[in-house]
Amino acid sequence: MTMRSSSLVVVPAREGRAFPLSAGQRIQISDVEGGQVGDVFAFVRDNPTEYHSAAHTRAHVDRLFPTLGEQFVTDRRRPILTLAEDSSPGHHDLLIPACDPARYAALGVGDSHPSCAENLHAALVPLGVSVDVVPQPINVFMYVQVNTDGTLSWLPAPTRAGDAVVFEAALDCIVVVSACPQDVVGINGGRPTPLAVELFDTAG
Amino acid sequence: MTMRSSSLVVVPAREGRAFPLSAGQRIQISDVEGGQVGDVFAFVRDNPTEYHSAAHTRAHVDRLFPTLGEQFVTDRRRPILTLAEDSSPGHHDLLIPACDPARYAALGVGDSHPSCAENLHAALVPLGVSVDVVPQPINVFMYVQVNTDGTLSWLPAPTRAGDAVVFEAALDCIVVVSACPQDVVGINGGRPTPLAVELFDTAG
Repeated sequence: MTMRSSSLVVVPAREGRAFPLSAGQRIQISDVEGGQVGDVFAFVRDNPTEYHSAAHTRAHVDRLFPTLGEQFVTDRRRPILTLAEDSSPGHHDLLIPACDPARYAALGVGDSHPSCAENLHAALVPLGVSVDVVPQPINVFMYVQVNTDGTLSWLPAPTRAGDAVVFEAALDCIVVVSACPQDVVGINGGRPTPLAVELFDTAG
Repeated sequence: MTMRSSSLVVVPAREGRAFPLSAGQRIQISDVEGGQVGDVFAFVRDNPTEYHSAAHTRAHVDRLFPTLGEQFVTDRRRPILTLAEDSSPGHHDLLIPACDPARYAALGVGDSHPSCAENLHAALVPLGVSVDVVPQPINVFMYVQVNTDGTLSWLPAPTRAGDAVVFEAALDCIVVVSACPQDVVGINGGRPTPLAVELFDTAG
């Protein structure tokens, strides 16, 4: 059972926001209009040089993609988040890095296109935090299909309006949510839209 | 066609060594006794804050695992290595992070067990290079099987004595090779053994 403790924050299309969480608190990320990917990063609050690592999580859970109840671990192999609730179709990617200026330059739309990498850094500024890295994110609602020959297909996010995931913090941490600005590759159906975030305290 | 330009260097079991390469040079990594995984890292030689990134490589090639001719790219999406030759069964992992003291502590054998993460840092010392990161390596000869339900199985390396891979440098770089000391999980058949490294210039 969860209890609301904050008002809803809209992460505008193509932008990012940072949310400090205490251990035990939960963060709900909702797809407002449907079909929108969110890049989720998590840093240890009192030492952001430790952060969620997709590679270490894969070795910890021995799975390609996240599943309900899964623990996400840091680059020092400590649990930092748990996937506590999921009302979406359940496709979340843990293979693909954040989009960045080099990605958009390679896609032929120049290096001034908004990106999740730049959203991460901008989102941390109001907290007075800066990090040297862009960790590989948890790409919520992103549907990457692994084909039988080992190739990857990037499919449009199958989420409907209102679909949501909830993560519970296992450590005091900062969670950054970027509403992915990708409008060249079809993962957001060609039209980036907002995400909505709510924080909850876990109630007895 | 390649031409030998250096004598063979043995990377002893459980240890790591670093090799500066110029663009166009090739590095051959051979499994001396068979069944041995090598963790391979690559850093840009004049700026080691840029390095091979498994996640960016996945997005670049749209494949889970490396294949012959594949380009590996840095965290800034620049090609740094190409898989030029492969006489092994062809299983090389790009999903699993380097073993480290936290991994061995979790496996119940204490945090003083040798690890690829520590081998990386130790190998760079003679070059006067230090890095703040342990990038997710290219795990040559490591056989991670993806099951139909998305779970991962860590299988013993199927390499025979003398099997080898050759990478060609696309940038001036430092390649670190660690003969993985993992003897708890069965990837090295429970018995870590050496690797052998040779550098070649590409001949016309």
